[in-house]
Amino acid sequence: MSGPVWVNGSEGGHLDPADRGLAYGDGLFETLRVEKGRAVLGDLHFSRLRDSAAALGLALDVAALQQDFLRFLQACPARCVAKIIVTRGVSGRGYLPDPAAVPTVIFSAHPLTEIPEAQDGIEAAVCTLQLGLQPLLAGHKHLNRLEQVLLRRELEALGKREALVCASDGQVVEGVFSNVFLVRDGVLYTPLIDQAGVRGVMRAAILAHAAAQGIPTQESRLTVDAFRDADEVFFCNSVNGIWPVSGLSGRHWTQWPLTRRLQAFWQEQL
Amino acid sequence: MSGPVWVNGSEGGHLDPADRGLAYGDGLFETLRVEKGRAVLGDLHFSRLRDSAAALGLALDVAALQQDFLRFLQACPARCVAKIIVTRGVSGRGYLPDPAAVPTVIFSAHPLTEIPEAQDGIEAAVCTLQLGLQPLLAGHKHLNRLEQVLLRRELEALGKREALVCASDGQVVEGVFSNVFLVRDGVLYTPLIDQAGVRGVMRAAILAHAAAQGIPTQESRLTVDAFRDADEVFFCNSVNGIWPVSGLSGRHWTQWPLTRRLQAFWQEQL
Repeated sequence: MSGPVWVNGSEGGHLDPADRGLAYGDGLFETLRVEKGRAVLGDLHFSRLRDSAAALGLALDVAALQQDFLRFLQACPARCVAKIIVTRGVSGRGYLPDPAAVPTVIFSAHPLTEIPEAQDGIEAAVCTLQLGLQPLLAGHKHLNRLEQVLLRRELEALGKREALVCASDGQVVEGVFSNVFLVRDGVLYTPLIDQAGVRGVMRAAILAHAAAQGIPTQESRLTVDAFRDADEVFFCNSVNGIWPVSGLSGRHWTQWPLTRRLQAFWQEQL
Repeated sequence: MSGPVWVNGSEGGHLDPADRGLAYGDGLFETLRVEKGRAVLGDLHFSRLRDSAAALGLALDVAALQQDFLRFLQACPARCVAKIIVTRGVSGRGYLPDPAAVPTVIFSAHPLTEIPEAQDGIEAAVCTLQLGLQPLLAGHKHLNRLEQVLLRRELEALGKREALVCASDGQVVEGVFSNVFLVRDGVLYTPLIDQAGVRGVMRAAILAHAAAQGIPTQESRLTVDAFRDADEVFFCNSVNGIWPVSGLSGRHWTQWPLTRRLQAFWQEQL
């Protein structure tokens, strides 16, 4: 780990081995791009964190966390990736949360490793491993990420930068570490995230920006074929921005007019 | 936490906040009952740990871990619950495992809190929350346990000691913190754990013991109705042993001839 690490507001802190974040993945995280000392799309990150904490019944004071995080950013490189982990805190053995447990908050800073050439199109694959369906957890960026670990290993074996990931119902959900969109006849489509996957902050920003620009958007069930047949396809996340797809399952693209407009919007955030 | 805690063989150790066990739940655990200073069904626990580590691609030296654990037990109360957590270790940000990462091993000891009256039958409920289906992770006692946290909260709200948990296909998988069996016409049935759930050590011990005793066993798809219509129903795990079910969805039981034989087998292990 390259930058500072704070545990509950103190630098260089350690984690209690009895933390429920470790025991059960009982917590959430956010990964934020930091530019010029400030968090890109910070409000969206904190609002997702607030919503997800409420959904999991985690008694988190997000306003206080945000204040601490601003202090933390002053100790970080002006350009980096900051990660926030929030857990349900330390408690005894057993799945039942202790209502008296105080959430653990960890901030860490990491180098931003950009892949500039990916801005001009990547070859994408389709993963064979599928996500399970769990509406209770869908959308939240929680700490139960073994599926993503296995998918990331498959992606490495496939030798591609990103890949479409389907759920066990055969519908596309997202990328391995991104959300995914397609453009068809001027409409911007992205998978509905209600059974699996993460409702990414960049996905939310794009949906809101497109709506404000009068670009029709739709969250829906989408197959791999719908992506292969699309006019444009791109991956997005709040660290890497937007990666247009230049190839997928034998289909090739060389122009991405709407994707390019959205990339310009991303550049304005930096 | 009441007893000693060892991290990588050292007492009182702390966990690195960059551990993948915290970041992604990228690891496994075992919960062992300790009686007279030794782990009950220890061989089965370590063999499951070996199998699950191999399935997740975790480079774990189980023999060395077992040696360390024997030393740890000497520092524990002769009667307690010992927990082993194994993670993929510390690495940088990102889902991709670092092949050079060394697994983190945590031992902790906890009080054994028995519920003696449960040996004579418990009222059971049926949870409304359902498990997602994920054959890649089914069977393993991994650290992605948010579903169990939510289920344990539901169980608390239901005011029952244990409950049947179904997967999203409607089939019964297990209890909230146990496996579950039914007896029908002399045959011992337990849900097949291939899509969801944990292949419990006590479940394995019961299946092996029954087979050795000439009791027919079957792992199969079982509905809630199959449990309600059974001659006997019981929950089991390697800490609490066997809890016969005295009531479920309006059905009542007062005698458990086969369950009682299996409870005697459990007592022999202590």
